[in-house]
Amino acid sequence: MRILLTNDDGVYAAGLRALHKELAKLGEVTVIAPALEQSGVGHAITLLDPLIVSSIDDVDGSQLGQAVEGSPADCVKLAIYELMDRPPDLIVSGINHGANAGINVLYSGTVAAAIEGAFFEITSIAVSLEYSEHFDFPYAARHARRVIETILSNNPPAGSLFNVNIPSHNRGEPKGIKVVPMGVGRHGEGFERRRDPRGRTYYWMTYAPPFRLEGEESDVIALADGNITVTPLQFDMTRQTQLDQVRGWTWPGPETS
Amino acid sequence: MRILLTNDDGVYAAGLRALHKELAKLGEVTVIAPALEQSGVGHAITLLDPLIVSSIDDVDGSQLGQAVEGSPADCVKLAIYELMDRPPDLIVSGINHGANAGINVLYSGTVAAAIEGAFFEITSIAVSLEYSEHFDFPYAARHARRVIETILSNNPPAGSLFNVNIPSHNRGEPKGIKVVPMGVGRHGEGFERRRDPRGRTYYWMTYAPPFRLEGEESDVIALADGNITVTPLQFDMTRQTQLDQVRGWTWPGPETS
Repeated sequence: MRILLTNDDGVYAAGLRALHKELAKLGEVTVIAPALEQSGVGHAITLLDPLIVSSIDDVDGSQLGQAVEGSPADCVKLAIYELMDRPPDLIVSGINHGANAGINVLYSGTVAAAIEGAFFEITSIAVSLEYSEHFDFPYAARHARRVIETILSNNPPAGSLFNVNIPSHNRGEPKGIKVVPMGVGRHGEGFERRRDPRGRTYYWMTYAPPFRLEGEESDVIALADGNITVTPLQFDMTRQTQLDQVRGWTWPGPETS
Repeated sequence: MRILLTNDDGVYAAGLRALHKELAKLGEVTVIAPALEQSGVGHAITLLDPLIVSSIDDVDGSQLGQAVEGSPADCVKLAIYELMDRPPDLIVSGINHGANAGINVLYSGTVAAAIEGAFFEITSIAVSLEYSEHFDFPYAARHARRVIETILSNNPPAGSLFNVNIPSHNRGEPKGIKVVPMGVGRHGEGFERRRDPRGRTYYWMTYAPPFRLEGEESDVIALADGNITVTPLQFDMTRQTQLDQVRGWTWPGPETS
């Protein structure tokens, strides 16, 4: 099996390296990842600028992978169109340093790389580790491999897309693995209003976790409760349940003026 | 009615100004938009850097709006949390210079701003104009207003999210208005491989429109056929149809080693 490994924290990130080690047990791993950290880039792509690609050697002289001066989604496109001999059988993105659960899925470069893989009908899996002072990536990578093995052993249709979150090791081993929908509550975030040394106002985003919606079963809640979460995603954003209703509205005809 | 108007082409963009003029017929418009063009940024948010906000005056001395040195999604967050007295009744994003149909929806900063609005349970509408050598934004803004009026007159639930594309005027007036799902075919894009003056290899993305999938009814096809398209979207990306199946797989229990 040929695996493309990418991320949004950059080619040197510890999360990618730990996952690389575990994925090497499952197949041949090719690393093509951003040259620089790309956190919070969402599904950005580089439409107008050239993409520079460099080979990156590890400290022992072995080849670590290729670094792209672009976004996670750029890496996947470029890997498939140009950098790999033929498309990979599996795309894995991660391990992100911080969870990508709830609406964070839409802000996440880690998940965007997996979505980009699904566009090409390649099964793609995003993996993130819950935030803590110290990230134990070898622990997270070991659990991620077990989840990925389970997914693959069930032969999901080509282009299947999964979002996996691993709870922080601070609370001990994960309670279990839960297959749950994406949470849809927004964050309790806000902004701090400050003044710069010249007296200009600026704003800095504060962090707050997503709201726990009453009675909601979601990745946000299952992760907070200490479980590994697995969420099957789709990239068709059509609100199917509203489509027929909106079709039934009276729409203006062609303008006759 | 209080309307927040934003975009991803920047506060000075002609598309925003044309839409501003039409929206002023429907309510009180507040413009809060990126200081610089943000095309292809997707749902990027600025997590780590401060956001500087400036008031922008028009050439006649009137206030045009506020410019945020950030992404379209940043503009919406900042507008709601800090810059507006109270949340708007409606958020409109556009008019983008170029269509946002099919999987482009996921790359689009214009649509991301509307999704961000929907997170706050505010009805949000993204508007884009099909690419052509010359963009006729006043034409597009007039049609956009008619579509927005129709949406509002049907009182959609708070937080409804719509993606609207207007065909280029080059082919005459639009044939009609079609309510259609988002296309899911990928683009026929690729990369040109080049060498820089120092001999390094770099890649530049080429453009090709999304594939027209056989028998597909979609925004991509309806727009190409000369229609205004309206697509109700949702931001819950859970693949509901796969959820129960994946739950039924045999998942490993807690590690006992």
